[in-house]
Amino acid sequence: MSVTEMFGYIQGFLDADQETREDIRKVVQILEQTAREILTVLQSVHQPSGFKEIPNKCAKARELFCTVRTHIADLKTKFPMEQYYRFHEHWRFVLQRSVFLAAFVVYLESEALVTREEVAKILGIEVVRERGFHLDVEDYLAGVLIMASELSRLAVNSVTAGDYNRPLRISNFINELDSGFRLLNLKNDPLRKRYDGLKYDVKKIEEVVYDLSIRGLAKESESGGGK
Amino acid sequence: MSVTEMFGYIQGFLDADQETREDIRKVVQILEQTAREILTVLQSVHQPSGFKEIPNKCAKARELFCTVRTHIADLKTKFPMEQYYRFHEHWRFVLQRSVFLAAFVVYLESEALVTREEVAKILGIEVVRERGFHLDVEDYLAGVLIMASELSRLAVNSVTAGDYNRPLRISNFINELDSGFRLLNLKNDPLRKRYDGLKYDVKKIEEVVYDLSIRGLAKESESGGGK
Amino acid sequence: MSVTEMFGYIQGFLDADQETREDIRKVVQILEQTAREILTVLQSVHQPSGFKEIPNKCAKARELFCTVRTHIADLKTKFPMEQYYRFHEHWRFVLQRSVFLAAFVVYLESEALVTREEVAKILGIEVVRERGFHLDVEDYLAGVLIMASELSRLAVNSVTAGDYNRPLRISNFINELDSGFRLLNLKNDPLRKRYDGLKYDVKKIEEVVYDLSIRGLAKESESGGGK
Amino acid sequence: MSVTEMFGYIQGFLDADQETREDIRKVVQILEQTAREILTVLQSVHQPSGFKEIPNKCAKARELFCTVRTHIADLKTKFPMEQYYRFHEHWRFVLQRSVFLAAFVVYLESEALVTREEVAKILGIEVVRERGFHLDVEDYLAGVLIMASELSRLAVNSVTAGDYNRPLRISNFINELDSGFRLLNLKNDPLRKRYDGLKYDVKKIEEVVYDLSIRGLAKESESGGGK
Repeated sequence: MSVTEMFGYIQGFLDADQETREDIRKVVQILEQTAREILTVLQSVHQPSGFKEIPNKCAKARELFCTVRTHIADLKTKFPMEQYYRFHEHWRFVLQRSVFLAAFVVYLESEALVTREEVAKILGIEVVRERGFHLDVEDYLAGVLIMASELSRLAVNSVTAGDYNRPLRISNFINELDSGFRLLNLKNDPLRKRYDGLKYDVKKIEEVVYDLSIRGLAKESESGGGK
Repeated sequence: MSVTEMFGYIQGFLDADQETREDIRKVVQILEQTAREILTVLQSVHQPSGFKEIPNKCAKARELFCTVRTHIADLKTKFPMEQYYRFHEHWRFVLQRSVFLAAFVVYLESEALVTREEVAKILGIEVVRERGFHLDVEDYLAGVLIMASELSRLAVNSVTAGDYNRPLRISNFINELDSGFRLLNLKNDPLRKRYDGLKYDVKKIEEVVYDLSIRGLAKESESGGGK
Repeated sequence: MSVTEMFGYIQGFLDADQETREDIRKVVQILEQTAREILTVLQSVHQPSGFKEIPNKCAKARELFCTVRTHIADLKTKFPMEQYYRFHEHWRFVLQRSVFLAAFVVYLESEALVTREEVAKILGIEVVRERGFHLDVEDYLAGVLIMASELSRLAVNSVTAGDYNRPLRISNFINELDSGFRLLNLKNDPLRKRYDGLKYDVKKIEEVVYDLSIRGLAKESESGGGK
Repeated sequence: MSVTEMFGYIQGFLDADQETREDIRKVVQILEQTAREILTVLQSVHQPSGFKEIPNKCAKARELFCTVRTHIADLKTKFPMEQYYRFHEHWRFVLQRSVFLAAFVVYLESEALVTREEVAKILGIEVVRERGFHLDVEDYLAGVLIMASELSRLAVNSVTAGDYNRPLRISNFINELDSGFRLLNLKNDPLRKRYDGLKYDVKKIEEVVYDLSIRGLAKESESGGGK
């Protein structure tokens, strides 16, 4: 085989590869669009009037997750599964955003931390790596940390909406989350950097609780909530 | 034709080009001066006493926009219109600043988002690209994002001036703007980066509203507004 | 019109734009492939045996320029011509490479500097900016400078091929070119930087001529050529 | 399951992962050591006296490739094969170096370009991605480009060793390789950058051949070869 023939043959490989990447990129763009739509639905919970609508908004978001699952099912057909990590970077960003959105919906519904298994189910993907398109622990944790930042915002806006109890519950939740992360031995990687941001969220929420406490609003609310 | 003749001829081209750029730069400098004057007029709205004068200040700014239109009319004569994008970078900055100023005036007057058509009219330029000196969508959006940042400042200063209702209205407006931007599929470009700054404006305004709420000032104002 | 409607409308603009860029990119890729093919044809002139084949190789390259013209004709259909400078960066690189290839062919054929008019004709584009898809002076000069570097290589390989006269002719040509560039008042731009590289080409060729002179090969050849 | 339990469980995953990476790193270090040993063996070909020993040195290198195969066999046991691309970065560097070494041995033996299939066999890995630990096209090409740089060095040292014919053969080989690479449509990636270095190797080798030619040493050798 001549060098020319060899390189012609190699170009065939490179072309096929380029096509696969193009296909993946297209589906990922559509996925990002759907993720932005879910975010827009959930953003209304920050509005004073939006608090009562949380159940409706969560239901609407859950519907949109059907679309997410459809797009991910489509994405799976674009490459051979043993090359998951070869193309991982293409969908990593949107996958972490989707974990955040799923975790936020579950929090709004039940004020509990979504498990990796639950997120995987919501996104229609696997937990176990060997089974194919799955949710890596790192991507799950990254999504949870994005939610922590959103919750610090929600604590602020709860006060605005006159709900003085929610910030206390968010504070408890975030503290538990922070304890959880402190159990982890994170290496000096992107996740480590992101985790460093959690302390600012913790601090912000503590300030909200402090403001409520100093004005006697936290207690008021607690006793009020117990009536 | 000898090489020397050829290059002499080419230098003629380069000289003409250089002259065009110099001409454009001069008009752009004058435009920037006028833009700074408009900003100075509008800055007074951040003053406690300036709130009542908003209509006056807007009227004054509108007058100065006549000067802007004159300068832009002058700018149009400095280069052939099919080279708009060749020299775009020269006036891009001042154009975006002017969009911001026009959007800010319109917001102050009506608390509504200026359309691209309205801005183009205020600046005396086209909306449709094919018609000549026009306002690109990207420049319009960039100007609107500069205004969002100005509005977060206005929210803070409204409180100082004792206007507790304006921050709430700004908050609603900015949230609507944020939802709008979330619909856009912005590529990884300068606009994308600028949009990332919007969330800080949103957050800042939410904190202002939070401060008002926790002191019972937001409600006061709301009920006050209802009288 | 609501903000949501406005932004939906704007997204339509951005989508159309994205599509145009995608279309341009595809044609540019094909153009680059053709340019590489022409280069491969012309590279053989550096081979000892390739010197005799220069006329054949130039003829073959000229044929491939038909394909270049077809692709550029296709490129022209992908965007409105008054936006030439809006998308200029997409094809600038391949356009300069094509100028180099055309200039190299003309040099090999006639040992003369191709004019901007001739290059434009070879590429099937305009010289006059107002007429549409054209060849800017800057892109023409950039292509000529790439050729200068190729000629310094050709001077070296001419010696290898036993042609001791060609390096002297290349030397004269490059000196004339250098004089031409010295007439230009280049601003501190990419072209200026590229021009700074010309002095290395001049120096390299001078060294070849020196090596020939000190061994009496230059004179031999000159008197030999005059017989 | 409490948050603490969840994060304890997650830490288990992270620990297992960390262990896998540590295991891979250890084997890769050993592989790098063996690669350095092979390089040391082959470096002697650059010595004036080393030219005669090329067959011996190649045989010795081939023996050391047995060790390479053993280490790679060991590496394969350290992680599940569907995670090849998850850990690819760990061994990419040493794999490309090994390709270079295999390609260099084959060149020294036969003055031919090793195929991807041959390299894979020498390294004891697969060509077909689906079969497991394999040699990607990109890694093969990267290794070949490292060899090109080594060959430009060999051309220089051949002259020193009095072998005036080898540089001419290297020159032909490198030109063929360069033509091959020009067929490829390389994206703007690490490989593209590396390929840009090839032109310096081509130029360097041409200068060596030039030096031989101008001193009449190339012809001597050529006529010598014809005896």
